Amino acid sequence: MEKIAETDYPVMDVIQRRWSPRAISHRPVEPEKLRSIFEAARWAPSCYNNQSWRFLVATQEDPAEYERMLGCLVEQNIRWVRFAPVLTICVAPLNMEFDGKPNRHAFFDAGLASENMILQAVDLGLCIHPMAGFSPDRVREIYHVPEGFEPITAFAVGYPGDPESLPDNLKEAEYAPRTRRPIREFVFTGDWGQTAPVVQE
Amino acid sequence: MEKIAETDYPVMDVIQRRWSPRAISHRPVEPEKLRSIFEAARWAPSCYNNQSWRFLVATQEDPAEYERMLGCLVEQNIRWVRFAPVLTICVAPLNMEFDGKPNRHAFFDAGLASENMILQAVDLGLCIHPMAGFSPDRVREIYHVPEGFEPITAFAVGYPGDPESLPDNLKEAEYAPRTRRPIREFVFTGDWGQTAPVVQE
Repeated sequence: MEKIAETDYPVMDVIQRRWSPRAISHRPVEPEKLRSIFEAARWAPSCYNNQSWRFLVATQEDPAEYERMLGCLVEQNIRWVRFAPVLTICVAPLNMEFDGKPNRHAFFDAGLASENMILQAVDLGLCIHPMAGFSPDRVREIYHVPEGFEPITAFAVGYPGDPESLPDNLKEAEYAPRTRRPIREFVFTGDWGQTAPVVQE
Repeated sequence: MEKIAETDYPVMDVIQRRWSPRAISHRPVEPEKLRSIFEAARWAPSCYNNQSWRFLVATQEDPAEYERMLGCLVEQNIRWVRFAPVLTICVAPLNMEFDGKPNRHAFFDAGLASENMILQAVDLGLCIHPMAGFSPDRVREIYHVPEGFEPITAFAVGYPGDPESLPDNLKEAEYAPRTRRPIREFVFTGDWGQTAPVVQE
């Protein structure tokens, strides 16, 4: 299913088509496509080029590994995620590599890289659903994530699936239109809350 | 100047071409292009669709406003930034709108939106240089940023300029090749630090 954003101003096709479906096909994802989505993450900008992102990944091809990662998610996510062929978890280093000091931009930069990954996926016909609903502690324990690294976001990756395959209580969200506050409500000039003239027509 | 990433695996053209130049032309940016870059930010995913991003923006068309924002940057950035026609600062709400509780994903989601903005800019022939070097306290004070919101990253926006116009000590970085650790060093399966088979060929 497609769910094209109803934009007020023109944006790139991949940004307009990107959304976070729960209906994901069990069709496997080609390894070369997975390499491309991580390669896209690789080239994001970051504070002092610290590259504040690592990814843990599991695919259905390795059922034991897949189940281990699936077990890190909350129950509400497991219900629909378990058909997704690929799971990945973004882990952010909290400190700067060059001096070991706390990096205020760690999560922000992990977000920059993750959005590259998401858009690259869309460009390849895939979809990615980011999830906050997982246990960072469990990830830390299972994967021996070292101190100073923080599991931040999990993702289900795959080809778009059939919304009708979802449990009834999830179908509604799947078909609901995408909503966002318009740019005049979050782009300010001069003072907080004052719409920037440049975004007013 | 272009600085195409030497990727190991294919990625989208905008991701390959995106970089963070300091040489930015003083040519003004069309308002419709600015609307498109913020519109792109608008459609990023976010935890509970909280849309954890606001942007403060100043353009050279309003010199007083521009100088106010420029004054929030650190001296090393002001030197090269002052020719950029547009400055913007991303501010993240730290709490969830629906229940007021702390949002662990605030900075991450602000990063997702900012990368949409950056790539949209590249797609329109613009460039964006993100900067950690500014005073969040000064931004808070000048723009009356309310409690619970955190200025996270500043950006210089414009058309690519001439690297030869930069001071000598900045030219070197401008011409230096872009470097990143390869994906086999940050995509793991099974255990921390263990390269994922799927990214090995």
